[in-house]
Amino acid sequence: MAKPKKQPRPKAITPKGFRDYFGEEVTQRTEMLRNIAGVYHHYGFDALESSAVETVEALGKFLPDVDRPNEGVFAWQEVDENDKGDWMALRYDLTAPLARVYAQHRNDLPTPYRRYAMGPVWRNEKPGPGRYRQFYQCDADTVGTASMAADAEICAMLSDTLETVGIPRGDYLVRVNNRKVLNGVLEAMGLGEDASARNNVLRTIDKFDKVGEKGVRELLTTGRLDTSGAFIDGVGLSEDQAEPVIAFLTSKAVDTAQTLTNLREAVGDSKIGTDGILELEQIGALLEAGGYSSDRVEIDPSVVRGLGYYTGPVYEAELTFEIFDEKGRKRQFGSVAGGGRYDDLVKRFTGQEVPATGISIGVDRLLAALREKGRIHTQAKGPVIVTVMDRDRMADYQTMVAELRNADIRAEVYLGNPKNFGNQLKYADKRNSPIAVIEGGDEKAKGVVQIKDLILGAKIAESATVQEWKERPSQFEVPRGDLIAKVREILDSQD
Amino acid sequence: MAKPKKQPRPKAITPKGFRDYFGEEVTQRTEMLRNIAGVYHHYGFDALESSAVETVEALGKFLPDVDRPNEGVFAWQEVDENDKGDWMALRYDLTAPLARVYAQHRNDLPTPYRRYAMGPVWRNEKPGPGRYRQFYQCDADTVGTASMAADAEICAMLSDTLETVGIPRGDYLVRVNNRKVLNGVLEAMGLGEDASARNNVLRTIDKFDKVGEKGVRELLTTGRLDTSGAFIDGVGLSEDQAEPVIAFLTSKAVDTAQTLTNLREAVGDSKIGTDGILELEQIGALLEAGGYSSDRVEIDPSVVRGLGYYTGPVYEAELTFEIFDEKGRKRQFGSVAGGGRYDDLVKRFTGQEVPATGISIGVDRLLAALREKGRIHTQAKGPVIVTVMDRDRMADYQTMVAELRNADIRAEVYLGNPKNFGNQLKYADKRNSPIAVIEGGDEKAKGVVQIKDLILGAKIAESATVQEWKERPSQFEVPRGDLIAKVREILDSQD
Repeated sequence: MAKPKKQPRPKAITPKGFRDYFGEEVTQRTEMLRNIAGVYHHYGFDALESSAVETVEALGKFLPDVDRPNEGVFAWQEVDENDKGDWMALRYDLTAPLARVYAQHRNDLPTPYRRYAMGPVWRNEKPGPGRYRQFYQCDADTVGTASMAADAEICAMLSDTLETVGIPRGDYLVRVNNRKVLNGVLEAMGLGEDASARNNVLRTIDKFDKVGEKGVRELLTTGRLDTSGAFIDGVGLSEDQAEPVIAFLTSKAVDTAQTLTNLREAVGDSKIGTDGILELEQIGALLEAGGYSSDRVEIDPSVVRGLGYYTGPVYEAELTFEIFDEKGRKRQFGSVAGGGRYDDLVKRFTGQEVPATGISIGVDRLLAALREKGRIHTQAKGPVIVTVMDRDRMADYQTMVAELRNADIRAEVYLGNPKNFGNQLKYADKRNSPIAVIEGGDEKAKGVVQIKDLILGAKIAESATVQEWKERPSQFEVPRGDLIAKVREILDSQD
Repeated sequence: MAKPKKQPRPKAITPKGFRDYFGEEVTQRTEMLRNIAGVYHHYGFDALESSAVETVEALGKFLPDVDRPNEGVFAWQEVDENDKGDWMALRYDLTAPLARVYAQHRNDLPTPYRRYAMGPVWRNEKPGPGRYRQFYQCDADTVGTASMAADAEICAMLSDTLETVGIPRGDYLVRVNNRKVLNGVLEAMGLGEDASARNNVLRTIDKFDKVGEKGVRELLTTGRLDTSGAFIDGVGLSEDQAEPVIAFLTSKAVDTAQTLTNLREAVGDSKIGTDGILELEQIGALLEAGGYSSDRVEIDPSVVRGLGYYTGPVYEAELTFEIFDEKGRKRQFGSVAGGGRYDDLVKRFTGQEVPATGISIGVDRLLAALREKGRIHTQAKGPVIVTVMDRDRMADYQTMVAELRNADIRAEVYLGNPKNFGNQLKYADKRNSPIAVIEGGDEKAKGVVQIKDLILGAKIAESATVQEWKERPSQFEVPRGDLIAKVREILDSQD
């Protein structure tokens, strides 16, 4: 290999929009993914791991465009002799790969096919604060059945999952809506055939979370002055025409029966609207039978996220407890998962409609929520550090750590330059070590070791009087043979 | 969004050189990664997960080349106004990102920094049989110490890891060599300053695994006729000149002391060679003190893989049991992990030498080995299937699966079209279900359920006589209230 030309030193920086995760950030996520997978598996879902790379053709949404081939995705062209190589891209979600895999293997897979998948996805977007170009998704989907039992099951599973990872009942709510009911409302309004008007209404409804009832009313009619002072044109409906949409969005009542009655009024005699309400009724009844009452899963027509994308039931999991945002204002934590039914998943590949329904959990948001609630310790205990007092007796220290590890205690020997003992304690501090073990020449001769309780030591250093310091020593001299017992005793006392 | 033009249907195929992993393939790997991470963590290593994407500049090996930007890696250029966007690429290993991360965060990280990392890496190579363009690596490295204790620790940890994932002692061997010893041999031969000759010798040695002692001797001297009939030119050394290299490669003796004596002879009074032997001696002594004798880790100068890449000790973990290859011939399973010391890791970024040493485990090969040995079941048990006899009583069936799941039994209700009962049993078969639960109208009226032992049923169908079939029924009618107890009893009997 020819040597490359001398170049300036490369910059050591994380690529724009990406992140590095250290220590507990990684292990906590791994643990959460493991817990979620456990629930999914328990419900009969099987794991699937497709490759991170797909052809742009199979991903579908993004056509190979010579000028901007990587609009929205990270894409590149395979090298071949004639510059006609396939365009490849990193997956932007886990649903598009599922569609490809199901279309490819549908004769070998069970029908219905319940599968879960977890892993990073990539979006080629302008990076912004808190917005990353690589993040984890954790999906479960049931492909090949139109039964509402599949949708009810997904909602129940989502509820179980949240409780399993540490969100207690009462702190979350899975809310269910149905795109068909909205279609029924539009039909009742006489907009059933008018694709452009329908899209305008859908786009407006999407802003319900942000602008509320009054805002949607303005946007559906004459327009709205937004908070920045800009005027947003309205869709141009009359107040009367806009009413059924508002009625739909605000139809949630004190109980499911009343909510459904309100919806029935909103859709009039629209066939698709009535179908949608029937679906919601079935989901509600199945969940009730499984013990999932409205304190966990409820019908709520104000759920609008994804209503434009999905074709039937739509679900969203919200955390209902309050947190303080960056400006110190109280607000609800909000959504951590969403999903719904989409019946055209595989059609692009095979021409056949295949009904499917599923959920995607935003793992990073869920982790943030648990940290916010203090349910995950952000600073875990580091290893026990065996310090090095005598460079030539490294074998002795290795023997000690081997003993500690064999006793199932996380431990390591200090591997830096042992000359300056202060550096060893600084290192232990950086590692958040609970205990340091010390065996100098004197100790060796006497057959003892010194064991330093670093956590107690730090506490005493912070606040203790001299008297307390004398009464509660944080360093102990024990016979070498008692090393394990003493270390374990201190570790237990620290919990 | 404007609608894309009508296109032919996309092909549903896994991209060339990539793979999809289903069910147990995924969960077994996840479990193995978890076990490995457990050992690494126990040794005081901290997790690091860097992004899958790095700048090509930071990856280093691959320079942005306009004609073939993605030689060896999957690379693309960031979009910006002036077509001057950075070249980005998928990481091809976990070491290059470690170098970038360490250079970037060195002031905040502890020194030494022990880190582990696991995840997919990508290589833009021509796909071949069994060769994939995305595969998992699982690395542990210690950065910032030149101490041989770090190398000994890595070898001990590798040994522990293999035993933890299920390779028993005696079925593996961690072999250790040292690049410095080879450098000493070359120095003793008078090739210390001749870079070109040294490279030729290194390249030749790399073939030792394949061509053996005789082959290397031929390649170092006059050349060799290989098995395909092609003549490979020799390096041009005389037989005498080649001798020290051969002596080095074959210096392994019955015990470590004798091996080291042989090596001392081979390096003569070369300083670097003597240093290398001293390092091997230290590693051996530390391992011995930790209880890692030569039945687990041994000094073996015939380990040549990576000898060109690393700067000090080199390690390789081999599985020593025999398997049958695709042609039915017995052979050893071979290498599942490799690593070594590389002291110029961070220098590209900072100009400073930072000593580092580490190991990379080939997770997929290790999984293959465990399957080969029958230590992983390739076909795990599926969920209990609650069949649907009466579509209108779906809530009853959901209640049953909820009960089963609450009793910690993996279970699901059949969600396909329930009309044809045979399809439900076929589905159960495809899922490898152990048990089917049946509750038709008659059973409901009588307050009972039918429980079918599908595994016993399949056994009986295969081989039983009529008499046996009568004596060992595989279907049981039990009161509805005994559902859980009976299912558990059957599951236990199947283990």
